[in-house]
Amino acid sequence: MGKRIVVGQSGGPTVVINASLAGVLRAAAESGEIEAVYGMRNGVDGLLREDLVLLDPYCTEENYRLLCQTPAMALGSCRHKLSPEELPLVAEIMQKHKIDGFLYIGGNDSMDTVAQLSHYFAQHNLPMQAIGIPKTIDNDLPVTDHSPGYGSAAKYLYCTLREIIADCRIYPVKSVTIVEVMGRSSGWLALAAGLPALLGEGAPQIVALPEVPFREEEFLDQVRHLLERDRNVICAVSEGIKDPMGSYVGQPAQGAKDVFGNPALGGVGKYLEQLVRHSIGCKVRSVELNIAQRCAAHLASGADITGAERLGAGAVELFLQQKTGVAAVLERVSNDPYRTVVTLTAVENLANKRKDVPLAWCHLEDSMVKQQVLQYLLPLIGGETAPTVCDENGLPVYFRLHN
Amino acid sequence: MGKRIVVGQSGGPTVVINASLAGVLRAAAESGEIEAVYGMRNGVDGLLREDLVLLDPYCTEENYRLLCQTPAMALGSCRHKLSPEELPLVAEIMQKHKIDGFLYIGGNDSMDTVAQLSHYFAQHNLPMQAIGIPKTIDNDLPVTDHSPGYGSAAKYLYCTLREIIADCRIYPVKSVTIVEVMGRSSGWLALAAGLPALLGEGAPQIVALPEVPFREEEFLDQVRHLLERDRNVICAVSEGIKDPMGSYVGQPAQGAKDVFGNPALGGVGKYLEQLVRHSIGCKVRSVELNIAQRCAAHLASGADITGAERLGAGAVELFLQQKTGVAAVLERVSNDPYRTVVTLTAVENLANKRKDVPLAWCHLEDSMVKQQVLQYLLPLIGGETAPTVCDENGLPVYFRLHN
Repeated sequence: MGKRIVVGQSGGPTVVINASLAGVLRAAAESGEIEAVYGMRNGVDGLLREDLVLLDPYCTEENYRLLCQTPAMALGSCRHKLSPEELPLVAEIMQKHKIDGFLYIGGNDSMDTVAQLSHYFAQHNLPMQAIGIPKTIDNDLPVTDHSPGYGSAAKYLYCTLREIIADCRIYPVKSVTIVEVMGRSSGWLALAAGLPALLGEGAPQIVALPEVPFREEEFLDQVRHLLERDRNVICAVSEGIKDPMGSYVGQPAQGAKDVFGNPALGGVGKYLEQLVRHSIGCKVRSVELNIAQRCAAHLASGADITGAERLGAGAVELFLQQKTGVAAVLERVSNDPYRTVVTLTAVENLANKRKDVPLAWCHLEDSMVKQQVLQYLLPLIGGETAPTVCDENGLPVYFRLHN
Repeated sequence: MGKRIVVGQSGGPTVVINASLAGVLRAAAESGEIEAVYGMRNGVDGLLREDLVLLDPYCTEENYRLLCQTPAMALGSCRHKLSPEELPLVAEIMQKHKIDGFLYIGGNDSMDTVAQLSHYFAQHNLPMQAIGIPKTIDNDLPVTDHSPGYGSAAKYLYCTLREIIADCRIYPVKSVTIVEVMGRSSGWLALAAGLPALLGEGAPQIVALPEVPFREEEFLDQVRHLLERDRNVICAVSEGIKDPMGSYVGQPAQGAKDVFGNPALGGVGKYLEQLVRHSIGCKVRSVELNIAQRCAAHLASGADITGAERLGAGAVELFLQQKTGVAAVLERVSNDPYRTVVTLTAVENLANKRKDVPLAWCHLEDSMVKQQVLQYLLPLIGGETAPTVCDENGLPVYFRLHN
């Protein structure tokens, strides 16, 4: 009799998290050893409610292709840290449905869920396995060459920054543009926003990462200095940059209220815009790139989609090899041509851990990233993608569960 | 002896304004009647400074292709309303360089420049012509079926709204998302943001245009009502919506200051986010789509590029037909298949004039746009585009003047 697995998605969305789901479905269908694949709706939250959907009817080439061009999360998501009391409940529901394997696509927190479950299964001698499939646009998971989702976000940032740079240059007027990029803790996304400078565009001239303490006076001096040389200064700034005391830059003062009396929300982009207007007085604007960074499917990187699919398939393979408490990860074996292999790591190496941008990749004195970043980043944004399934108007079709 | 023309770009950028320049260059080169094409750097500002660049060396197939994939303005822009004293100066500089034709790519204000010049040339019996080439993402120019630049902005909005909708739906939590769209006076861009709803996505559920007075209480009632039915409510809102007294919604109170004491800037998206948080209290966020709407070359509409090129070529044809004081415009002759012809109109019909979204296209009672909008809009966002000139990394190359 065949095995049964359940797969879920958790945490924040990326453009390719559904490609990992496609990888799971295809590998399961083609293995000949798996008789049923269930999906948890809204991650482990749904599993705890027994809100499962049988995914085998979706195992078709057309659906794999649709999943690979559909942003966000086809199964829905949750942010749920399992409590010790919930572990037996998960095991019970899996037993009830004769499910042998728990596959979870997510970031640091989701890998914690996998770690907890695999420990629990082992401690209680339960014949069940838990396996992780990494994803996050933040790229802050250790071990793996990159986290699926990051390559597409990086491609979005590279393209959009280039377009913003072109837009900034049309008027013969000195100006400063602050582009706020996601990344609360790590600067991987800001690093990608710096790509146009490394590829000869002459901007952004400043790239500010959370890994490097941000000093307002130094920033202003640098902007003033750059304005003597360049007409248009563009700064790519992580939302998570901190001052030398460790406080987020642009956090509103404690007790600050908005016009309706709600607590005011911060935003480093608007704050630095106001700072430059106040201190330098030139034309200045800020652009917050916002959620398009994690959902711009129309700019997905082909390399990223492929990596995400392969990790999904790799997790199924690890399941069939009886592994548990592990995650499928990508190891880069060659840069030129870019080539990775799927390997595995103990899920503890990913759970609640973080990989920052190496400081050796940054020119600390002038807030810029080094040329060697290209070798790492360029392969991740490569690979042409165009939607392959379109409607009668030529517009891309998204995957949807039937109900 | 051949003729000489000068071409300039003016006003805000669009994704296809360089395609119109390509159309001018190609038609001029292929006409056999034009011996020189000059470019004004930064529009009429540059002409007044005699900052001209000879464009004939750029008349190659490769450059036409590059221009068609390059956002913003290859010649630079200006915002300069000609004063009566400057008119003889323009004529003098044109005479000095033996230039017979002034071709200007721009919006309402730029068409005013063309109108003033053609009047001046006629009044003084000068053998010079001035011709307009419309463009604006706002699509608010009368007469022409659409303004080049709008189709690409509309495609960007359609794609991005779909992606935002997918992103909003991953958590099983009630939420409101406010998407702020450009359009200070006209709602054409907000109309395009409404496309996903018309194509069956179920959102955005509210589309607010400047043409329709905005009442906060009605908006809140509608959001509350929608939240009873739908988990995630998405509102596409023009930056230029006004209350029934005609004031922009979300303008800061007079005298309001930012943290540095500068005058506070408004923003309808953030304002409505705060309003919903205060009045309804559910999860709410706002997204300001910002300048990507006018520079997202990676999402250019093929139909838009073609229209822009044809208007550039059409203007050269009008010049060779000895016309002056006219603009090349697009007339739609068939919807299915979509087909336009290039025709002409007196430039006064475009200068300082505005075309609003017809109220007959809106469901006023529930802030939604009508299905008939599809017939107008769908052809404009069609046509696949992919950069045809790429570097060794597969990344698109942009056109650049050599110095």
